[in-house]
Amino acid sequence: MTLDDLPTPCLVLDRAILKRNIATMAAAVARHDVPLRPHMKTAKSIDVARLALEGQPGGITVSTLAEAEYFSAHDVTDILYAVGIVPQKLDQVAKLNDAGADVIVLTDDLDAAGAIAAHSRPPRTLIEIDTGESRGGVGPDDDVLLAIAERLGAVLAGVMTHAGHSYAGRSVADMARIAEAERSGVVRAADRLRAAGYPAPIVSMGSSPTALHGASFEGATEVRAGVYMFGDLFQAEIFTHAIEDIAMTVLTSVIGRRAGKLLVDAGGLALSKDRSTEAVAQDYGFGLVLDRLGRRTLGDAIVRRAYQEHGVVELDPAHPVDLPVGGRVRVAPNHTCMTAAAHDRYYVVDGGDEVVAVWPRVNGW
Amino acid sequence: MTLDDLPTPCLVLDRAILKRNIATMAAAVARHDVPLRPHMKTAKSIDVARLALEGQPGGITVSTLAEAEYFSAHDVTDILYAVGIVPQKLDQVAKLNDAGADVIVLTDDLDAAGAIAAHSRPPRTLIEIDTGESRGGVGPDDDVLLAIAERLGAVLAGVMTHAGHSYAGRSVADMARIAEAERSGVVRAADRLRAAGYPAPIVSMGSSPTALHGASFEGATEVRAGVYMFGDLFQAEIFTHAIEDIAMTVLTSVIGRRAGKLLVDAGGLALSKDRSTEAVAQDYGFGLVLDRLGRRTLGDAIVRRAYQEHGVVELDPAHPVDLPVGGRVRVAPNHTCMTAAAHDRYYVVDGGDEVVAVWPRVNGW
Repeated sequence: MTLDDLPTPCLVLDRAILKRNIATMAAAVARHDVPLRPHMKTAKSIDVARLALEGQPGGITVSTLAEAEYFSAHDVTDILYAVGIVPQKLDQVAKLNDAGADVIVLTDDLDAAGAIAAHSRPPRTLIEIDTGESRGGVGPDDDVLLAIAERLGAVLAGVMTHAGHSYAGRSVADMARIAEAERSGVVRAADRLRAAGYPAPIVSMGSSPTALHGASFEGATEVRAGVYMFGDLFQAEIFTHAIEDIAMTVLTSVIGRRAGKLLVDAGGLALSKDRSTEAVAQDYGFGLVLDRLGRRTLGDAIVRRAYQEHGVVELDPAHPVDLPVGGRVRVAPNHTCMTAAAHDRYYVVDGGDEVVAVWPRVNGW
Repeated sequence: MTLDDLPTPCLVLDRAILKRNIATMAAAVARHDVPLRPHMKTAKSIDVARLALEGQPGGITVSTLAEAEYFSAHDVTDILYAVGIVPQKLDQVAKLNDAGADVIVLTDDLDAAGAIAAHSRPPRTLIEIDTGESRGGVGPDDDVLLAIAERLGAVLAGVMTHAGHSYAGRSVADMARIAEAERSGVVRAADRLRAAGYPAPIVSMGSSPTALHGASFEGATEVRAGVYMFGDLFQAEIFTHAIEDIAMTVLTSVIGRRAGKLLVDAGGLALSKDRSTEAVAQDYGFGLVLDRLGRRTLGDAIVRRAYQEHGVVELDPAHPVDLPVGGRVRVAPNHTCMTAAAHDRYYVVDGGDEVVAVWPRVNGW
C-alpha cells in the first residue's frame, strides 16, 4: 500500500522524522540528567508512546481520562492526568487504579483537595503551580499552597507546573528565561512544602520549548513535553524544531482547480480551524502545502480558506504546479494536536511513500 | 440519568429546540412548494435525519463518504455527496450504489467528468455551478458547462449550487439578494443545458440563510440546508435564528476558579478553534456560556481562550456567579458543525435536564 491507495483526507506520520524528534528531545533532557514523562495529548497512540518511552522510566502524561483508560489498557500504568481534577471524575480514576493503573491527578483548589482526600479510593495528587502562564495553578508563594497540602494529607505527591506561556516566546533566549522561571517557581513551591513538613517527591515541569531550551532543571524530578514528537508550523516558528522536522501531515486530494488556486478535500475538519501562526512571523493560514512526498516543492502554497470539507490553496506564483483533480498533496499543520484530533488513525510511512503501518488514536473523553 | 451524570465535556442536544428549528425550515421551503434535501454534515446522526426528513421526499445531502455509508446502512439511500468528486472515490461510491444506495456525485471538472463516464459503474452526477461564492463550480454562462455535460453523457442528472457566500451577508435583505442570485444562476445553468439538448432533472440550491430568506425558488427542484437544525452563535448573528434557538451546546465542568474567571474542561478540542463570530457584530470568543439548563443567566460570560483541554471563561461583572470546581455550565458554539465533530454522540434532553436518549454521530472520512 502506498500513499496513492489511502482515502483522503487522512493523517500521514513519517516514522523516520518522529524517531529523530524523539531522539532530539531525549538528548536535550538527558543533558540535565532528568527523565522525560512524555505527554501523549498530541499523539494519543500506544505505538508512538512506545517510541517516546525508549530509555525513559515509563511514566506518561495525558490530557483526558479516555487516554488514561487507553494507555493503562496497553500496560502503560504510570499516568499523570495533567488537567485539574473535578470530584465527579474521581470514581473513574479509582476504577483505573483498582485495575492496576497509578493515575496521578492534579488540583489547585482547596475544596477539590478536600473531595480527593475524602474519596474512598483517593489517587496520588500533585498541586498545580502557576509559574507565569496564569491558566491554572497557585502561585509558588501563595499561602493556599500549604492549605491545599494540609487538605490533601497522605495523597499529596508533589507539585507540577506547565510553562504554557513559552508559546508566547519569540526567541531561544525567551524560552530559556521562561524555562528558568518555570523551574525556579515549581522548585520553590516544593521547597516551601518540604519546609512546612509536607512531602514533595514529584517536582514536574515542562513544555516542548522549555524542555528543549532550559539551561537547568535543577530540583525538578521530571520534564513533560508532547508536541515535539510531531512538531508543527507554529513550533517551527518558535524554534522548537526546523520546518523539515514536522512528522505529521494531512494527505489530501485536489478536488477543483482555479487560476492560481487548488481546491482540496482537507477543510476545517481535517486541518482544524487553528490559526496559531497568525501570531508569529510567518502566517501559514490553515497550513503549508507540501508535495505528495512531504517535500517543500510548492514554495509558499498555503491553505488560505478552510470550509468544513473544502480547503482553498493559494499557490505560490514562483512555484507553479499543474495537478489534476485527484492529484495529491500534503498539508503541514499549524497546530498538530488540534489537527490530529479529527482523525482516528495514522498511516505511517518511513521517509518514502510506502505505508508501513496503521496506528490507531484514542480521541474524545 | 440527568446532566449531572454525564462525563464532561460532552454534547447536549435539546430535542425540543431541534424540532422547532426543523419545523421552521420546513415551513420556509414549503411556502415555495419546493422540497428540502437536508444536509447531514452538521448532525451526522440518523436520529436527527429522521426528524429532518419528516414530510420531505427522503433525500439527504452529505459531506463525506463516511456519512454516505452510514446513512445508506440506515436505509436513507437517496444521497447527494456535495463535495467535488475525485476519480479515486468512484469505486467506493459504486460499492454503495451496488448495495442499494443512489449516491449522486458532483463535479466541475472536464477530466473528472470523463473519469466518471468511463467508470464501470458510474453514479448519477450533478454539475457544480458557481453562483457567487467562488469556491467550486463553473459559471452558469461558462462554455465549459456544456463541455462537461457532453463528457458526462448519460449520467448527467442536473446542476447544483451552494450560496456559501450568504455567510458574508449581514442583513435579511443581503440574504434575499444572495438567494436570488443563487436561484437565478443555477436555473440559468439548467436552462442552458436543456436548450443544448441535455437533461437537467435536478436543480439543487441552498444554504441555511438563503433557504430561509429566499423570496422565490422558481425553477429549483430542491433546497439544501443543514446548520439550521442545531444553529449556532454565528447563524444567530446573521439572522438565521434567535440565540435561544441554539439546540446543541457543550456541557462542561468548572476545573478552576480565578477572580472574574472560570477554567472549564471544554477547550479547543471540545469547542473547536472556530472563530467565526470574530467577523460579526458580537464576538463570542470560543463560545457563550449558559447555565446548566442552557439559559442565558450568566450574561456575556464568554470563553475567551481555548487551550487543548482548558477553556478560560471571562465572567460578566453584571452577572456574578459562584460555581465550585465540578460545577457545570453549557457553552453555545460559534460554529456548530465544527464543534460537534470532536464528539461521538449527543446526549439528548427535551427542554429539561433529564437525558432522554443518546444518539451516535458518524465522524471522520
